[in-house]
Amino acid sequence: MNQKNYCVIMAGGIGSRFWPMSRTAFPKQFHDILGVGRTLLQMTYDRFLPICPKENILVVTNERYKELVLEQLPDIKPEQVLCEPFMRNTAPCVAYSSFWIGDREPDANIIVAPSDHLILNNAEFQRIIEISITQAQESSNLVTLGIKPTRPDTGYGYIQWKEDKKSENELVKKVKTFTEKPSLELAKDFLDSGDFYWNSGIFIWTLNSILNSFQNNLPDMYKAFSEGQGLYGTENEKEFIERIYPACENISIDYGIMEKAKNVNVVLSDFGWSDLGTWGSLHTHLAHDGHQNGVVGKNVLLYNCADNVVNIPNDKLAVLHGLNGYIVVESDNILLICKKEDEQKIKQFVNDIKLKKGENWI
Amino acid sequence: MNQKNYCVIMAGGIGSRFWPMSRTAFPKQFHDILGVGRTLLQMTYDRFLPICPKENILVVTNERYKELVLEQLPDIKPEQVLCEPFMRNTAPCVAYSSFWIGDREPDANIIVAPSDHLILNNAEFQRIIEISITQAQESSNLVTLGIKPTRPDTGYGYIQWKEDKKSENELVKKVKTFTEKPSLELAKDFLDSGDFYWNSGIFIWTLNSILNSFQNNLPDMYKAFSEGQGLYGTENEKEFIERIYPACENISIDYGIMEKAKNVNVVLSDFGWSDLGTWGSLHTHLAHDGHQNGVVGKNVLLYNCADNVVNIPNDKLAVLHGLNGYIVVESDNILLICKKEDEQKIKQFVNDIKLKKGENWI
Repeated sequence: MNQKNYCVIMAGGIGSRFWPMSRTAFPKQFHDILGVGRTLLQMTYDRFLPICPKENILVVTNERYKELVLEQLPDIKPEQVLCEPFMRNTAPCVAYSSFWIGDREPDANIIVAPSDHLILNNAEFQRIIEISITQAQESSNLVTLGIKPTRPDTGYGYIQWKEDKKSENELVKKVKTFTEKPSLELAKDFLDSGDFYWNSGIFIWTLNSILNSFQNNLPDMYKAFSEGQGLYGTENEKEFIERIYPACENISIDYGIMEKAKNVNVVLSDFGWSDLGTWGSLHTHLAHDGHQNGVVGKNVLLYNCADNVVNIPNDKLAVLHGLNGYIVVESDNILLICKKEDEQKIKQFVNDIKLKKGENWI
Repeated sequence: MNQKNYCVIMAGGIGSRFWPMSRTAFPKQFHDILGVGRTLLQMTYDRFLPICPKENILVVTNERYKELVLEQLPDIKPEQVLCEPFMRNTAPCVAYSSFWIGDREPDANIIVAPSDHLILNNAEFQRIIEISITQAQESSNLVTLGIKPTRPDTGYGYIQWKEDKKSENELVKKVKTFTEKPSLELAKDFLDSGDFYWNSGIFIWTLNSILNSFQNNLPDMYKAFSEGQGLYGTENEKEFIERIYPACENISIDYGIMEKAKNVNVVLSDFGWSDLGTWGSLHTHLAHDGHQNGVVGKNVLLYNCADNVVNIPNDKLAVLHGLNGYIVVESDNILLICKKEDEQKIKQFVNDIKLKKGENWI
């Protein structure tokens, strides 16, 4: 294991499409959403343990979730939890963690990953990460993982790749274009063509490469965070971050850097990935009975039910009869029953509830 | 108000068809099942306040519910709650309360009623009770209230009536036959004929008449309870009851007395009655939105839903989307979702749960 490998887990999101389980006070990444005994954050952490020393794993999150992170990951130290004073997009999060690492290890290799994704084949993931680190070191390029698409999903970003003549590894390609959330027609064309992969949001680069990219593409952000050099990891870090964050641009790393940079590789990956973006996407990954019901909950009895995704606390009994194609979720005093085919409406419900019943329920 | 009027409220049942709200530890009659702010027991008590002095209202229930009764009816004294050591059918319950009343008031008029029925027109109910008391006193007959049927329900008992030449009141009839739970075809014939009424399970008689009927039709039970004369209402009552109850026949007052006695009147009634036997029957009586949804619960949001009966605790938020014709009930850590047309299956579910998950859930 390379002692210069660092992992940055981004854990500041809310995951409102997973309401009512994912709530502002207790977002998706902190839930054992698959009913396997580990939360999504814990599974992400576990996945990085063979890749870097545990003291090199950073979690970037909102100040309000710091205690939750430390509870769920008792092996990391408080200073490994980097706290954003309020929600910003991914670029400030990457800048913050990069400079933090820079104060410790100028030769670091960095893996940046969301905290709330599912990866089924961890051994293959590890192999892909190693290929990516090698590529990042040898080429000084930015590396992103592309996921072999299995359906024309219109909710994802797509990466078109082309051959990278400089690389001998056939999984390593050059990025030709990024396309966010295409139309269904376009997504079908992408799938047919074979040279479009899903954008996973998992990145690998060296510290030098990413700092150079900030300097070139987001110079104000680079300047702001560079003024903190020497303060990261000290008692003055918090005051500094709270001072500069309000002026930070609210921009994603994809839009702010990846889509502009010329030196981007994509590594073609296929390790059983899901962003677990919606209840429906979860359905695919839950154990199924003989009737395509995906159930989490120790006391759920189904009679004459098919094709449902059910998530009920273990201490609760649920008896379901005659339901086909529904999401049935109970979480922290909220019950949601929603037709699976209409799950995109959950966002509307949440807005409606905010207006009618107040912030406490969301 | 006649000071010799006594009311006996039978409150020992379990109401398993109303599971999961009605549970062994907290049966239906103790719930505010309509969401009106009073439980069914309290509504029954209220209904009798204009008919007899409140110290003449007795509640017969199982020992385990005594505290619950006293909590819900703070105006009655502990001795007015007659406790059965274990569940028996209605005949022992009537015998017990009759002898209890006999030790206080040998000239009593007694009204016996279930604790878990709904009556919408209380003024009309009071008028019918007065007619019935008059008839019971003048004729020494047993009087039962017949309910004008509105549908060929196969779950009820039916009373066929004929004219009573001795009575001048046109609502007072003689009972010709009792028929329990007829076939649908028969029930339709009953409805068409016009001379069949539903058996409400509400009875009116004088103390002397009912004691005579016990002596003639259930002589062993009569003898057992008569040996306690002088003990009812004293500190020795409990020990006596616990001694004789095990030997009591487990029989209903309908089968043990009413169907055998020759001196039975039925008073034709129409006061908006329901036995609230099932969730479906409750649906009719709940306030409806524009889409035939009957909802109890302060935080229930329906989207694209019709013809459902929903009962959710007030402190809980429920969001329902795309449901048609379902029962959705949450009560004390149990969630039930069941197609309304299949609600008779709830009993099977309860049996299944008893086997698979244990007694605690039922």
